[in-house]
Parts: sequence; structure tokens; C-alpha cells
Amino acid sequence: MQFELTSEFLSALREDMERLDSTTVAAKVEDLYPQDIAEILDEVTLQEGQFIFRLLDEEIRPEVLMELDEDVRKRFLRSLSSEEIAQYVDLLDTDDAADLISELPEARQSEVLDQVEDEEQASDIADLLTYDEDTAGGLMAKELIKVNLNWSLPRCVREMRKQAEEVDTVYTVYVVDDNDRLVGTVSLKQMLIAPERTLIRDIYDEDVHAVEAHTPAEEVAQIAEKYDLVVIPVVDQWHRLIGRITVDDVMDVVREETSKDYQMMSGISENIETTDSAFIMSRARLPWLLIAMGGGILGSQVIEQYEGQLRVFPEMAIFMPLVASMGGNVGIQSSALIVQGLANNTLGRDGILPKLLKELAVGLLNGLACSVAILGYAYFFGHPIALSMTISLSMMIVILFAGFFGTIVPLGLKRFDLDPALATGPFITTANDIIGLFFYFVIGRMMYGFFV
Amino acid sequence: MQFELTSEFLSALREDMERLDSTTVAAKVEDLYPQDIAEILDEVTLQEGQFIFRLLDEEIRPEVLMELDEDVRKRFLRSLSSEEIAQYVDLLDTDDAADLISELPEARQSEVLDQVEDEEQASDIADLLTYDEDTAGGLMAKELIKVNLNWSLPRCVREMRKQAEEVDTVYTVYVVDDNDRLVGTVSLKQMLIAPERTLIRDIYDEDVHAVEAHTPAEEVAQIAEKYDLVVIPVVDQWHRLIGRITVDDVMDVVREETSKDYQMMSGISENIETTDSAFIMSRARLPWLLIAMGGGILGSQVIEQYEGQLRVFPEMAIFMPLVASMGGNVGIQSSALIVQGLANNTLGRDGILPKLLKELAVGLLNGLACSVAILGYAYFFGHPIALSMTISLSMMIVILFAGFFGTIVPLGLKRFDLDPALATGPFITTANDIIGLFFYFVIGRMMYGFFV
Repeated sequence: MQFELTSEFLSALREDMERLDSTTVAAKVEDLYPQDIAEILDEVTLQEGQFIFRLLDEEIRPEVLMELDEDVRKRFLRSLSSEEIAQYVDLLDTDDAADLISELPEARQSEVLDQVEDEEQASDIADLLTYDEDTAGGLMAKELIKVNLNWSLPRCVREMRKQAEEVDTVYTVYVVDDNDRLVGTVSLKQMLIAPERTLIRDIYDEDVHAVEAHTPAEEVAQIAEKYDLVVIPVVDQWHRLIGRITVDDVMDVVREETSKDYQMMSGISENIETTDSAFIMSRARLPWLLIAMGGGILGSQVIEQYEGQLRVFPEMAIFMPLVASMGGNVGIQSSALIVQGLANNTLGRDGILPKLLKELAVGLLNGLACSVAILGYAYFFGHPIALSMTISLSMMIVILFAGFFGTIVPLGLKRFDLDPALATGPFITTANDIIGLFFYFVIGRMMYGFFV
Repeated sequence: MQFELTSEFLSALREDMERLDSTTVAAKVEDLYPQDIAEILDEVTLQEGQFIFRLLDEEIRPEVLMELDEDVRKRFLRSLSSEEIAQYVDLLDTDDAADLISELPEARQSEVLDQVEDEEQASDIADLLTYDEDTAGGLMAKELIKVNLNWSLPRCVREMRKQAEEVDTVYTVYVVDDNDRLVGTVSLKQMLIAPERTLIRDIYDEDVHAVEAHTPAEEVAQIAEKYDLVVIPVVDQWHRLIGRITVDDVMDVVREETSKDYQMMSGISENIETTDSAFIMSRARLPWLLIAMGGGILGSQVIEQYEGQLRVFPEMAIFMPLVASMGGNVGIQSSALIVQGLANNTLGRDGILPKLLKELAVGLLNGLACSVAILGYAYFFGHPIALSMTISLSMMIVILFAGFFGTIVPLGLKRFDLDPALATGPFITTANDIIGLFFYFVIGRMMYGFFV
């Protein structure tokens, strides 16, 4: 049932293209969905891609364009005339059309828009282009079905019939008042069940979740998830209905947001995939490694400061990496909880202080467990009591401190409108490593003074 | 427009409840959405929750139940009679009803089902309960609108009117043949535009993405995301239409899956939130800390093995934590890329070998950059040439090795049907730490033999 792009399919297709066998190539792709065709075009050369593209139905081409990888689409658009792009833009839903045009160089944008035949489509797109792409306005499409509060059912059906020509899929029928203000929805069910002469005002449902055009995309996603919405109407500041967002676009926002957080924690700075080139992968990963290495160098300088101590008590070297890494581990746990809580809007209503106190409690519990465990291990495996006490006590302090640091940093970043996920990146882990080493040596000096 | 649960709202509400002021409490909650009411009930005691619950419209109660946190809902269900639960089950959509019943103890499940008044609803639910919850069958609902290929439009509308009484929201009208096999969909648009006497077979759309009941939930989510589906029909092995999945349930799957991967990487073993108690948080975090500590102890034993070397060249201690942590960092990068590629189905079609070769290339590039940088640093800041060469060379080897290890482990876990995200947890990081230390000392012995 599902198309799966295999290497065999691809190499056979390439052979057909080498023979310029349009009939076979066309037959192989004509029954595929736009998403599947786009997957093929993502894998072949631009020239081969154009060969396939030209064999496609005009109707399906714009959708294929929209489904391409961004860099492949950019190359494709460069190879198309403005007139041709304008034709495709005419066939797309307004939200996709606006996205497509926004990827063109500024100079070309108006060139294309001028050549869009349907003037209403062109003006809708121009309107959508004014919104920030990370807001409800940037996600919405203009296509929707709306009926007036005061219409009768038969009139409603007549008007819907007219509007439906412009709209591909009808998700919800919106109800507006005489000033075009959104007042509710009317379900197909109600329209089917109600007697012929009913007015919309008698059967419509006032419950409707709308968002304003300037609502951030992430908030739209949170609302859609919380209230299980499949389509969300967008209103302007006078509550006039100006568009609607479908949930597939919302899912893209969620997916992007979570990927970004995941990548941040794993130390990757671009949206890369394993299919990207080694050079691109290296470029996305090297900066974080260098930052982490910089942090490690700072840590090495802490150790250098205490080299004298290490010469006298060389066994202290044994637990250095352990104490450094435990700070990093605890810090990541705390930061990740805050970052995820911010993303899912589940942080709760209490302020920073109660969170820090709770983190302190968690740190005391976990710190106690870890420091008792390591004390037992170190002592029973014959390490000097001074060293055993040092690693045990620094474990406790590092866990407490890293939990505190890991909680307060993402909250602080958020307050200054920076990305809290930065806290899960190498900066904080490295800071925790360094501070852990510092505590270890300070405590070691005390303990060795005491026990030796 | 959005309800925001504040501490002020909550404490005022609690005061109203203490005065047993039902009227005020009812007035405060009656206009809220089920999700918002559930948020309140999640925050108050069971007794307070029941007070509020009893004041709600019977119609809204089942939805509020469904929106509660799982543990709160469990407590609520225990306090309700089977008869009452059966009433709510009757009002819910079949997918939610089945989820609700599956949370009851086995013995109570049939007790409740027996008391569901609508026998069709009861048998639909019993049917849904037979599917694994992580499959399409476990996500689907039975409520849908279907029409026969051979019906005329007026007959179609008559039949839809009958079916609509059972179905709350009409997403898509499915078209089936005489054997109840799914053959396509018919859009509201086509029904509105077509002339009165048209047959469905003349206007329906054959393009429909269906999934079989046993399709894993994650695959359903991938299909929904790829093809931008808002609702997905579910068929049995004979392609008969047996249910439909809405995208909000798919989004929950995506959210759960990505949270799980995120938590795995941050070293958290349960689905916890910052609002959970310190004890629960400690329980979810401590196991990973102990595992990481165990790994750190193994690392410390590697160092112990080379204590003699450290006594002679104590300056070798300086770069120990750096070399250990770089192994961990690179390993996480590689594993995270694979885990994310598996989750998003973007790994590409090539096998393990090309991936390892690419990782090798990335490792060479990044390893070269890092080892040159650290060589420069160590040499110019006056460290002995033997030490400088040791840290530089081990950096290169650790980065190469950790990249290899980080790539092959998640792919191997996947092959044995284990969760590849385990590779981003502390096991591999710790293994990389240890192996990094080992390389460092082995190389150190060689270098000091050579240069000193």
C-alpha cells in the first residue's frame, strides 16, 4: 500500500532516463503521491529531476515542488521561469503558495506575484507574506468556508457551493456575523439533521477556539494539542475571521521544535540528517566539539593549579573524571526537565524558588545515595580514607550544585528571551565539569589536611 | 480568549468550596472547556475534585475524565460506581471509551461494559479492546460516515443523516463497495458541486491512504506526517473499513515518542514533570546517575591500572577529564543523529557500511581540527612535547572511535528490536569515557617512551 523508495527502483529509473525513455519513466511515477515523487527528486541530479518533473501532470507539479527538500526546491525554482512559478502558485493553497514565494529572492517575489493570473489569489498571498512566519498568520491559509449567522440552510448550501470551488478540503464551516466576526461553527452533522428551513443562528455552535494572527506558532501548537483541534481559525484584532490553520502545519511546528531541542542537547547546531554530506555533518558538529574542548581545557587548568597536590597524593587523579562527569550528568537532567516543561507548557504555576527548593530536595536524595555508594566502594576497595571522604563529599556537593545550576540557567535564559535549550548544550555541562573538579580539589585539600 | 489557571483563581475556588458555595463554584467552571476543568481537578484534592465534578453538566463529565492526568483519573474512577462509569462510557467516542475502560482493573472492565446501555457501543468498545494499544487498531475509533459506491447523492445524504446521529464530527465521508471494502472518499465539495442525480461512483476520489489495524502506531504517525493527513481510515486484512484515526491521537504518539527519546538522552527513566514530587523525580533520575557512576568507577579503575605511569609523569592527569569527556560528546552526536533518523524515517536507503564510512570521514575532519587545536594549545602553553603529542593523538583516536561506536550501537540495538535511544543514554557515553581514558594512557606510554 505504501511506496518505498528502494535503490533498485532508483537505479532502474536512472537507466530509463539515460535511454531517454519518457514513456517508461512517466508510467513509473504517474501513480505515485507527490510526497513519493518528491522523495525521488531529492535523490537524483537536478537534470534528472527536471526530466521527471516535465513528465508530471501540471496539477500535481506544485505539490511535488512543496514536498521537496528545501535546498533541492531552491535549485529547482532557480531553473524555472517566473511565469511557470506563477502558474504553480495559482494552483497551490494560499499558505503553501506564500511559503513557496517567500523562499524566492526578494527581487523575484514581486515578479512572480505580478504574473499570478487569479488576482484574488495574488492579493491573498501578498497579504499572508506580511506575517512573521513563526506566527499564526504565517501558518494560516485563506481558503475556508464561512456562512452568515442569519442565513437559512438552503441559502447556506448555495453559498457553500460557490465557496467550495475555491477550497479543496472542507474541514469546518465557520459562522460569522454581519461584520465578518467569527461567532462559531456549524457542523455538517447539524446541517444534515436540521429541518430544511432552519436558520444557521438556531443550530450553530458557539464553542470555537480561535487564535489571533500574531500568536506565536509554538503557542498555536500548544493550543491545538491541548484542545485536540484539527483546524484552528485565525482572527484579527477585531475578531474578524481571516484564515485557518490545519493541524499538519502545526505538527511540523511541533516536530521542528522538538528536533531543535534534541539537537541542542546532542551538540549539533544545524538541522542535519545522516543523508547529508560528511562536510555538512562536520560543520554542524565541530563547533560544539570545539566549545566542549575549550571547556575541557579550562578544566585542565583547574587541575594544573592543583598539580602540586596531585604530586603529593597522586591517587587523587583516580576519581577526577568521575566527579567531572557526574556534575555534567545531573546538570543535563535538571535542564532537560525545565526545557521540556517549557516546551509542553507543563512547568506548573509556581515560581523559580519552589522549583529550586524541589531540585534541592531531589539533589539531597540522589546526592546522598550516590555519595554513600561511592564512599562504600572507595573504602572497601582499599582507597585511603582521605580519598574516600573526598570523592564522597564532592559527589554530594557536585550533585547539589549541578542540579541548582541546571535549573536556574534555562529559566534565566527564558527570562532574557534566549533559547532555554542552550542550557542542555555543552556550555553548562562543561561548566559543571569544571566546577566539579574545583570542588574535588578544594575538598581534597581539606580532607587530606584532616586525615593525613 | 485562553483560560489560564492561576494560583489566585485556584485559592479563590478553594475558599468557595470550603464554604460549600456550589453556586459560585459552578458559575466559575461552567463556561470552561473540559481540558481547563481537568487542569483544575489535577491540582486539587480528590474530595475537592469530586465536589466540582458533581456540579458539571453530565454531558461534559466524560470529556473531563478523559483529560485528567492518568493518576488523578485512576483515583477518580475508583471513587465512581461501575454504573456511573458505564454512563460516561456511553457518551464518549469509542476510542476514548476503550482507553478509559482499559485503565480499569480487569475485573471491573466487564462489569462496566455489561452496564453500557447502547449495545452497539458496548460491542464496538469490546472489539477495540482486542487491539494492542500501540497499533492503528488501538488508536482508532469506530465512529465514521461511509456511503456506498452505487448510491445516488440524495440517498447518500439520507443515509449520512442517519449515521450522523452517532458521529460527533464528520471529517471525511468514506466510500465502500458492496463488500464493505474501502475504495475511496467523497468530499463535501464534490457533493456540493455535483448535480442532484449523480451516483457516488461518478464523483468519488480513489486516492485514499489507509492503514491496516496491526500497523504500529509510530508508522501511522510517520504516514500521517508524510502525507499531511488529518484523519486516516483503518482497514482489516480484507481491506474492509473498520475505523478511523484522527490526527490529535497521532500527535500524542509523536509527542510521547520524542519525549521518550529526549528523556533517554538526558538520563531520566520515567515520564516526569517538574510538578511531580521530589521523591518521584529522584526515583526517575537516580538509576541513571548510579549507572553513570558505575561507568565512572570502571573509568577510575583504568586510571588505577596506570597509576604507576601517573606517578612518573603526574602532568598526564591534566588532560584526563578532557579526553574522557570528548569521547562522550562525539558518541552522543553520532547516536542522536541515528536515533532521530530512525524516528523521522530519514535515515536513507543505504546500509550500515556507507554510514560508518561517512562517520569515519566526519571523524577525520573533526578529529583533525580538534587534535591540531589541542596540540597547538598544549605545546604553546608549555606542556612537555610528549604530553602534547599524547593528548593530540588520543583526541584524534577517541573522536574516530566514539563516532564509530555511537553509530553502530543504535543501529545494532534496532536490529535486535531494542530501543535505539538507549545508545544516547549513559551506557555509551560512559563506555566512550572509559575507552577514551584507555587510549590516552596507551598512547601516553608510547609517546613518553619515544620523546623522553
